[in-house]
Parts: sequence; structure tokens; C-alpha cells
Amino acid sequence: MQPGRRTVQGELERVLGVLARTGVAPRTVVAGRTDAGVHARGQVVHVDLPVDVAQDRLLIRRLNGLLDHDVRVRRVTLAADGFDARYSALSRTYRYRLTDDPAAADPLRRHDTLWWPRPVDLSLITGASAGLLGLNDYAAFCKRKPRGTTQRTLLRLGWERQPDGVLVATVQADAFCHSMVRSLVGALLAVGEQRRPPEWPAELLAHASRPVDLDVAPARGLTLEQVEYPPDDQLLTRQGVTRATRTVDGD
Amino acid sequence: MQPGRRTVQGELERVLGVLARTGVAPRTVVAGRTDAGVHARGQVVHVDLPVDVAQDRLLIRRLNGLLDHDVRVRRVTLAADGFDARYSALSRTYRYRLTDDPAAADPLRRHDTLWWPRPVDLSLITGASAGLLGLNDYAAFCKRKPRGTTQRTLLRLGWERQPDGVLVATVQADAFCHSMVRSLVGALLAVGEQRRPPEWPAELLAHASRPVDLDVAPARGLTLEQVEYPPDDQLLTRQGVTRATRTVDGD
Repeated sequence: MQPGRRTVQGELERVLGVLARTGVAPRTVVAGRTDAGVHARGQVVHVDLPVDVAQDRLLIRRLNGLLDHDVRVRRVTLAADGFDARYSALSRTYRYRLTDDPAAADPLRRHDTLWWPRPVDLSLITGASAGLLGLNDYAAFCKRKPRGTTQRTLLRLGWERQPDGVLVATVQADAFCHSMVRSLVGALLAVGEQRRPPEWPAELLAHASRPVDLDVAPARGLTLEQVEYPPDDQLLTRQGVTRATRTVDGD
Repeated sequence: MQPGRRTVQGELERVLGVLARTGVAPRTVVAGRTDAGVHARGQVVHVDLPVDVAQDRLLIRRLNGLLDHDVRVRRVTLAADGFDARYSALSRTYRYRLTDDPAAADPLRRHDTLWWPRPVDLSLITGASAGLLGLNDYAAFCKRKPRGTTQRTLLRLGWERQPDGVLVATVQADAFCHSMVRSLVGALLAVGEQRRPPEWPAELLAHASRPVDLDVAPARGLTLEQVEYPPDDQLLTRQGVTRATRTVDGD
């Protein structure tokens, strides 16, 4: 939700309101709030609905029939006890797509792929990525906020060059602070272009705020691909752990 | 080229004109003219340029720097003697992407994927496709034109369901008449939904014009993926064969 702006959450609540006919649109809880311009293919949302709406077998078709084509509901299911889209999540997985070769620039993917004007050294980026993993304070990669911890556990930061030449970063963490993936990618691109030494991104972990010379990578290459949850019988326990370790400002 | 409309060819000739500084923009020859709304990822174009422009190593960067992001030049190379983008081509390969399952509908691919509202039987479609292969008169699958043959050789018409649930048709022919792939896909979808018997598409090959009840599939699912050429020493021979068997109206 962003006051005065069209958002995925706003669109979804609008059509849920039409179907629920409850007067006030149902409030959704989302697993990962994404910056403007960032995509989501595997977003997870929970919402309380009147029983007849929740059990309507045609609910997914009705929702997609009312939504514009840039927002799709891919699956609808009754949530297990203790499920909270945000606080039950174990981790989120994002992908960042970029091409550094005109031959790999596919106009049909221009909306979710960054075209980088110079060649990037994949082995340098991969080496520098390893130093960023683990439980760290990512303040240097977060947009400053008045409250909230910037401690996160980065579980995965892997790069591969696909057969079509596109470079894809897969980034998984328990949670991400604001613009964290884009800041990590921006720092690693500087290494890949040899504008910065391979140690530089990991050294930034000691900084208390984002350096002014760290270029945040553009939003359009980034997509939230998946949100991971524990088995149903651990949902409530996981909620408690998350609520205890993060303030309401973290995603 | 379409008078008064923005087209890929028009954009390309515009920027070639800027770089060539020849006053009149160079005229391009394209391998496959696509209907409005159809995409091309593997289009091939030839053009005569002043020597200094043709040999400029930065030509591809300069072209892409001037083009809008929905048109990209992926490779620039000097053509072999006898090469003609259109008349030297052996065949063209198109893909048609569609999903018949809300879970497979990816908003990021909405521009090049048709969302079909009902499930489609892949085995019925595959069976019916086999009967359409070979050298035939495809008048029933062509938009009527005053002149020009509708004889074509359909080399491949294969379907597969990808791991992500998207149905993809791969269609290869020596050449295609206007809206031919979309008409073939439209007829096969009617079979896949059991609105028509499996024999129906092949039976249409005996028709002299397109039946009014044949629904042409929407343009957006269709992409020209590749154009196939013979080895360099056969380019000129191939041109002769093509020019002898097709009028200037065929693509």
C-alpha cells in the first residue's frame, strides 16, 4: 500500500472488496513488500474472507476476471492454523536479471531485465558474493530508517550465466531491509567491472550506513520469486521467533 | 513498413539514416514481415550501408543507443555474397505461447503469452497437428490476398508443455502467408477444447479460403524466433528457387 499510488496490494484489496461485499475491503498481509518498480512472481498474501467467498471454487477465476492483466492470482488455498504470510515466513528468494551483451538483450524481457552497458566478470562477482553471506548487519545495504534492526541472515547469493547470456543472481535471506538486494547487486557490479576490489562489498558490512558512492541497481531487474514457509505444525512457533527478532519496520 | 504507423522496420531505418548521414534513410529487407502485435526475437535484416558505417566496430552500440528499448539489434555482421535476408532464407521458425491454467499465468510474460480461459488437451492438439505437415495449399489458414500462392511447406508443428505449465507451439515452414500461424493455432485450440474433431484442421486444407468460423489466435502469443539460411555457397541458388516459386506477396 502507498497512499495515492496504484499498487499490487491496493488492486488485490479492491477486487476482494467487490467479491466479499463487506463494505470495507478486506485487509491483506503480504510476505514481502517490494519497492516501486520491483516485480513479484511468487508473492504470498493472507486475508480473512467471509466463509462463502473463501470456499467459492471459482474464487481464483473471479479474482483474475476483475484484476488488470499486470496482476494475477496464481493459487488460492485455505491457510493452516497459525499461518501468517509475513511472520510465518522462513525466508524470501529474489532474482536479479541483467545482460551485459547486446546479443543477449531480449526486448520481450526488457521489463524485468537490466541492460548493463559494459561487460561484467562473473568470477569476480561470484568471489565477492561469498563474503556477504551469513548473519550480518546490512546497514550499508539498507535505506536508512529511523527504527528497526538491519541484522539479517543472507542464506544464498549465487550468480549464473544462462545459456541465452543473461546473468541471474539468486538472493535468499530470512528477510530483507529496504532496497537491500539492489544495493548488494550494485556493489557487486562495481566489482564485476573492476571499479572496486573484490573485498569491498564485504568490507561495507562494518559500515553503519549506506555509503554515498554505492550505486543501487535499478528496480526493474528484480523479482521476488518465492517465499519459504515451515511445515504447518511450526507456523505459530516461527511467527513468535520472527516477531521477537524484528520490529514492525522490517520486511 | 506501414504508412503512418510506428513499426520495427521504420524505427530501424530511421536510426540507420541518422548514422549513415546519406540524406535518404537506407532501405532494409527483412526476412519475415510480422502482423501488428506479433513479436520477433530472431528477425534478420539486410541493408546496404556506406563502407565506413558498415565497418564501424561500434555500430551495434550506436544503433542500440539510438533505438527505443522495445527494438534491439542483437548482432551486426557483413553479409556474404548473394545473401538476401528474405529470398535466401530456407525457413522461418515461430513460437506461440499460451497458458490454460491460472497458476501458470505470469504477469511478467503477459506481453508474449496468451491466457486461455479453458483447459486444453495437449494430446488432441498434437495428434491434429501431424495432419497439417508437408507441402500443402494453406488457403484456409491465410488471410485472402488478390495475388500470390498459398502453397507452403510446413516442416514442423510441435507442442510441448513446459515445466512452468506454459504450452508452447513451435512452427517452422519455408514461408508463411499472412496470419497463417495464428490461424493454425486457432484451429488446433478448437480441437484441444473438443469443440472440433481432431480431423477438422487437416480437412480444411481442401478449402480454397478461410472459413468464417475459424478463430484466428491473438497476435500477442506469437514470436518469430529464428530464420534459417543455407551455407554461404548456396545463398544465390536459394534466392533463385524462392523467387521462382513465390510471388512478391509471399513472406
